[in-house]
Parts: sequence; C-alpha cells; structure tokens
Amino acid sequence: MSQPLRLGIAGLGTVGIGVVKIIRRQAALLEARTGRRIELVAVSARDASKDRGISLKDYAWETDPVALAKRDDIDVFVELMGGHEGAAKEATEAALATGKDVVTANKALLAIHGQALAEQAEAAGRIIRFEAAVAGGIPVIKSLTEGLAGNEITRVMGVMNGTCNYILTQMEATGQGYNALFEECGRLGYLEADPNLDVGGIDAGHKLTLLSSIAFGTKPAFDKVRLEGIQRISLEDIHHAADMGFRIKLLGVAQRSARGLEQRMSPCLVPANSPLGQLEGGTNMVVIEGDAVEQVVLRGPGAGEGPTASAVMGDVCDLARGLKIPTFGQPANTLEDVVPAQTGLPAPYYLRMSLLDKPGALAKVAAVLGEAGISIDRMRQYGHEDATAPVLIVTHKTTRDALDQALTAMAETAVVDGEPVALRIETV
Amino acid sequence: MSQPLRLGIAGLGTVGIGVVKIIRRQAALLEARTGRRIELVAVSARDASKDRGISLKDYAWETDPVALAKRDDIDVFVELMGGHEGAAKEATEAALATGKDVVTANKALLAIHGQALAEQAEAAGRIIRFEAAVAGGIPVIKSLTEGLAGNEITRVMGVMNGTCNYILTQMEATGQGYNALFEECGRLGYLEADPNLDVGGIDAGHKLTLLSSIAFGTKPAFDKVRLEGIQRISLEDIHHAADMGFRIKLLGVAQRSARGLEQRMSPCLVPANSPLGQLEGGTNMVVIEGDAVEQVVLRGPGAGEGPTASAVMGDVCDLARGLKIPTFGQPANTLEDVVPAQTGLPAPYYLRMSLLDKPGALAKVAAVLGEAGISIDRMRQYGHEDATAPVLIVTHKTTRDALDQALTAMAETAVVDGEPVALRIETV
Repeated sequence: MSQPLRLGIAGLGTVGIGVVKIIRRQAALLEARTGRRIELVAVSARDASKDRGISLKDYAWETDPVALAKRDDIDVFVELMGGHEGAAKEATEAALATGKDVVTANKALLAIHGQALAEQAEAAGRIIRFEAAVAGGIPVIKSLTEGLAGNEITRVMGVMNGTCNYILTQMEATGQGYNALFEECGRLGYLEADPNLDVGGIDAGHKLTLLSSIAFGTKPAFDKVRLEGIQRISLEDIHHAADMGFRIKLLGVAQRSARGLEQRMSPCLVPANSPLGQLEGGTNMVVIEGDAVEQVVLRGPGAGEGPTASAVMGDVCDLARGLKIPTFGQPANTLEDVVPAQTGLPAPYYLRMSLLDKPGALAKVAAVLGEAGISIDRMRQYGHEDATAPVLIVTHKTTRDALDQALTAMAETAVVDGEPVALRIETV
Repeated sequence: MSQPLRLGIAGLGTVGIGVVKIIRRQAALLEARTGRRIELVAVSARDASKDRGISLKDYAWETDPVALAKRDDIDVFVELMGGHEGAAKEATEAALATGKDVVTANKALLAIHGQALAEQAEAAGRIIRFEAAVAGGIPVIKSLTEGLAGNEITRVMGVMNGTCNYILTQMEATGQGYNALFEECGRLGYLEADPNLDVGGIDAGHKLTLLSSIAFGTKPAFDKVRLEGIQRISLEDIHHAADMGFRIKLLGVAQRSARGLEQRMSPCLVPANSPLGQLEGGTNMVVIEGDAVEQVVLRGPGAGEGPTASAVMGDVCDLARGLKIPTFGQPANTLEDVVPAQTGLPAPYYLRMSLLDKPGALAKVAAVLGEAGISIDRMRQYGHEDATAPVLIVTHKTTRDALDQALTAMAETAVVDGEPVALRIETV
C-alpha cells in the first residue's frame, strides 16, 4: 500500500470548506483514482470558534499559517487565504523551505511573486500547482501546460472575472446602469473587499499573467499587463454594441507576434454570436489558440465553493499520482523576460464621444482621425436635446498608438466634451 | 541531461504526418517543456514509396507495424493506423509485451478491447494514452481523468462526430436533404470507408464508451451503448425543431443514476441557444458535469492533421515528463462491469409521423399515447395533399420504454404510415 498524501489547509473560507467536504465525501473515489488515501491532517484560520457548517475537530488547528506550513506531518500545503503579501507569501515560502509541495488558489501571489516562488520550489525539488487560481472549475492550467504542450501557442484569451461579466450581461438584460449593478454586486457579496480588483480588471489581469507565462514561456509579469476596467462602460455603449452585432466583455488577451508579447485586460467588443459573446453571468471562458490545435474553447463556473474546490482537488490528485511539472510548464530558469510589444496588433475600434454643438465639430473629429492615419468604417451622430451630441464611430483596423495619438489631438480641438470611450473590437 | 524519449510511429496518414511535422518543427519547444529530447526513430506504413509531402529518410522504415512495435530502440509506440482488429491490435499488444508505452488515436480498438489492453499494460508496468481518440484536439481525456479527478461525475455528453454535425448543420443552413449532404461528404472525403461508422453513430459511440469508462470507473463496454444514427432525420425534422427553438444533434450521453448507467448515442433535440445547440460544422463539444464542478464545456476541432496531432503530442509530452496514470484513470482490475440502466431517465420526446387520412386517426394516436402513460405537451397536424398528413407531437417527460410501448401499439392501429421518428429532447 502507498503512503497516504497528507494535507494541511490554510484558509477556511468558502473554498477551503469546499475542499474539506470533497476530501470527506469522496474519500473512496479519490483513493481509487490516485492509489493513495488523501488525508487532511491540519487546518489553519484566524478564528477557531467560528461556525463553518462542518465539524473540524478531527484536524489539528494552527492559528498561524506559517506554523501549519512547517508541520512535519503534512506533505502538501494548500494555500487558500489569498493576498499577495503577508501570511500567504510567508506560509508558501515556509512550506517550500520545509519540503512541502504547494497547491494554491492565489492568483495575486503568483502573478506578482510567481517567478521567485517557482525558483524556490525547483531548488527545493518541490511542486507548485495552481489550477484554482485561474477560471475556477475549468481545468485550463492543465489543458494549457499539459494537454496542449505540443503547440506553439499564438494567443490566449479569456473572460475570467465573473463579477464583471455579470454586470455587463445584466446591463444589457435589465437596462440597469453600471452604478446600480455595481451596488447590487456589493449587496450580493460578488465584489472583492477592494472592488477595484474586480471592476478595475486587476483580478482578471492576475489570471491572464499566469496563462501568458505558461503559453509563451515567459516570467509572469503582471506589471506588463495593460489594464483597463469596466467602470466607464455605459448603457449606451452596451446598446450601440448590440445594434452592431457585438457584446462588450472584459477580455484578457495575451498574444505573441513579431512585435513582441501583448498582454491586455480591457473591455472589448466581440461578435454577439461567438462563444465569448454568448457567455453570460458569472461563467468564465478561456480560448486557447495554437499552431497545431487551431482553437480550443473552455467554459465553466469561474468561482464558488464546488468549482474552485474541484480545481484544488485536481491538483491534489496530481500530486498523489506523482506528477512532476515545473510551476509554469518549464523550468523557472528557462523562462524568458517579457518583451512587451511596442505597438499592439491592429484592430478596429469602437469610439463614443460627446460632441459639442458647434459648427464644424464633426469635421474636426474626422480630420483628427484622418491625420492619425485612421479610416472610418461607420459613423453615427444621434439626435440630442442638450449642448452635446452623442457620436459613435467604428474605425477600420488601426493600432492603439495611432488611436491614442488621435485621442490626444481630439482633446486639443475643444469640440469633444469629456474623454471619449475607446474599445477594441477583438477578432475571435 | 535526461535521455531522449524515442518514438516509433505506425500509420503515416494525415495524423501520422502531422505528428512528424510537430516533432520536427517544435523540437526546441518540446525539449524546453518536457526536459527531454523527443526523438523519432522509426516509422511504419504499407507503402514506403508514396509521396507524403515530407522526407522520411531520417527514420528507420518498417513495413510491418508489429516489427516496429518490437524494436528495442523505441520507448513509445504511437499507433495511428486505426481499426479494432488485425495489425493495430497485434502491434499494440506487441509494444506492451516488449516494454513500450503506447500512444494511440484508435477509439475502436480501445472501445472494444480496452479492458484487456489496460490489464496487459498494467501487468507490464506500461502506460496507454489516447487523448487523440476522443474529440480531436480537445484535451478532454486529460480534463476528465486528471483535472476533474476530485469530482463524482454525474453526466458526460458530447457532439463528437464532425461529419454528422456538418450534415445536420448544413441541412438547416442550406435546405439540402440528408441524402444530398451525405453524398457531398463522400466527395469531400469526410466519410469513413464504411460510412455507417459516421452516420450510424458507431464512431461517436466508441468515443462515448471511453469517456464513460473514465467518468464512472467502469470497464469500457461499447456493446452496452444504445446506438442510433442520423439517417432518418429529414429536413422537416430540422425545421420543426428550429420552429420550437431546438436544434438536432447527434448527441452522446453517459449518465449514472440510481437506475444504473445509461449510455446512448442518438440524434437529440437540444436548445438552439445552448452551447451544444450553437455548435456548427465539424467542431466537437464535450460537456462534463460533476458534483463539485457543476458543468464544464470543452469545444474544439474534432479532427484534422493539426488538432489530432496536437492531442497525440500532448500524450507524448506526458510520457516524456514521466506521468503515470492507469489507462482509464484507475487500475483496470478496479473497473466495474457496466450495469445498464433498465429504464433510462425520463425526458420529453419529439415525435413525427405520417398519419393516414382516415376518420379518427389522430384520436387513435392520442389514445395509444395516453394508454402508455404519456401526456402530450404540443401536437400539430399539417395540411397535406396526398393520403397522409404530417403530425408532430412533443410529449411531456416520459421514459424510452413507455415510448417504445406506445410506438408498438401505434403500429397496430394501422393509422400511421411507416415508422414514426422519435427523438429525445435532452436537458443541457
């Protein structure tokens, strides 16, 4: 008989409790599949007295996650606390330093300190697994790192923040504005303690950082992701996009070309009838494109007790089965520095602006675009009752740089009220 | 430095050549990811003189695949010949007997002889991998066996025959009938040598057998799959389904309940706006449902040189990385015999029949359904110009047994011309 695989879990929130439940409910199944008993030895959380809905008296309790990580009666440290500094980082380092493998759902920690942690793990001959850090229950890290390992990956895209997707789909479905839905998400508990992690694209940007590292063999570099949140998307944008056959999604894209590596997380227009366009509510989707496989699309629940615990347990089963793969799919010392693309690949853009009611205003906007080398595919000026007229422009393919140049020049014309909304139309 | 992983490939059709191309094109990438050089040593096909578009002179040539399988200078036997008897089976057995791991795309071989081969592999301490056997480039075997290993799987569904999906979607898109599109598929080379493998649901049934074995820990048992092809689907069915918000798909479903294990491959109605309903052309889709993960949907190309070679290379990389997992996810001697559900789970059904133009005919049909305990949700009789009237019925939830009983009784009423078409409406 093989030795049991002994776990310590730090963090007993929704996901932690979900993992405990699976370990108990599916003990026989897990042993049949992995050939080893999966045994929970110790847990850690701040408050031992809190009612978490299940009894935890069979497990040793550590108030300090670092003490849990150092215990010599566990093989795997399961980090479900979150946060990229402090206890989560210290405990992960302590676990690796004392010979444990690590399973984590912590996207922020790995997006920011992943390179150092991967190096530490490899030096110690240990493994870090993080399926639960990206796109909840979807086995996307495994698909990308292992299933598609024969591919040169050309692009990875994803809708990976359920809260943003919920807000954007509810805006179209209910006609409520961004602010009302943002408040609703707060009441429903859909928002992180710092809501900017969600609506500012940071959380999804962390996830994109991890996918991008695996896909392109680069060091994870969250600071090289171009981030833009959904806070400025209005109902008008949602409706204009729908009229033209598009939906607006907070879309992460990592793409390598001769220009370098582009990594961006921003609201984009995608065709309404594409898999990404049809994605509703809290569901996540990741699209992976490779030179051999063409395109694979993975869809599933992006969060929640069961789905995230499923991803954690997938990693635990891998460790029980003896899988040994470097953190980001190849040895950490072979990962290259990200060389960001100086100019992104061209795309059509959607522009919405408020034009001041002055003679020649529209002509000035058109001239500014022309001077930046941007040609116009469609333009509409809407009727208006106040001093500004809503204007909608869809450009032909152009670069973000040319667009930024035009937007700067546009501000100087003094015919546009406020800052235009500019959204990329992504080919999917 | 690790030793290279040495391959022998039997079968140099589209997929075999695709694998050779990846090994050559991505040598550096594969070595970076797996830590080992992937080296092609020998190949086998019937005709050495045939022009396959690339030079094969660097590899030893074996006319006999069994001789290739037995070579002592290969570590992995890659079987891409196909067929569940004869050379493919003998060569696979020979490879295992002489200490090689096996990577295969052969769904028929494993669906029919998988249990014996898995037992042989385990007795020899070898591995059989078969990602390319199911759903082309989609890493579905890996997702189910590894990524979702923490789940008790409740249902696996899939559209896994691109030719059938092409025919069904083209019927709706172009208004051409089944026969015309069947002939077109023949001209385009989309059909197997025995077309019944495609349109009779056999090929997709083989794939379902493999998914079902992994999902439910049962011995692969193709003979326990209830098979029905798409040959009787008419344009009328396609249009009626569309009118009601459905699409017809050749859908494989494996589902476990207290009744036992249901495994069926049959044309079903699915909601037109569901991911399965929206799947077009040769694309494949697999839906996996588990107690923790809820639902994961995987979509990608179901065939073709690049996608299938991508799946083969995923398995090769796993072997290079030292992965060791039993063929069907748990040791072959722990797989249980399939206990088929005596009665399938109830569902609504779509019925289309030609009613003879006799007084009381419709009443007789309705009475027969009532006697079988089947209640009618919707019924339409269409105008007609000959001696039979098209009648369309959607039932409330009923079992296939009750329906078969009603269909038998209906034949005895002598008011129905020919055999009614009966299609399950699947909840997705």
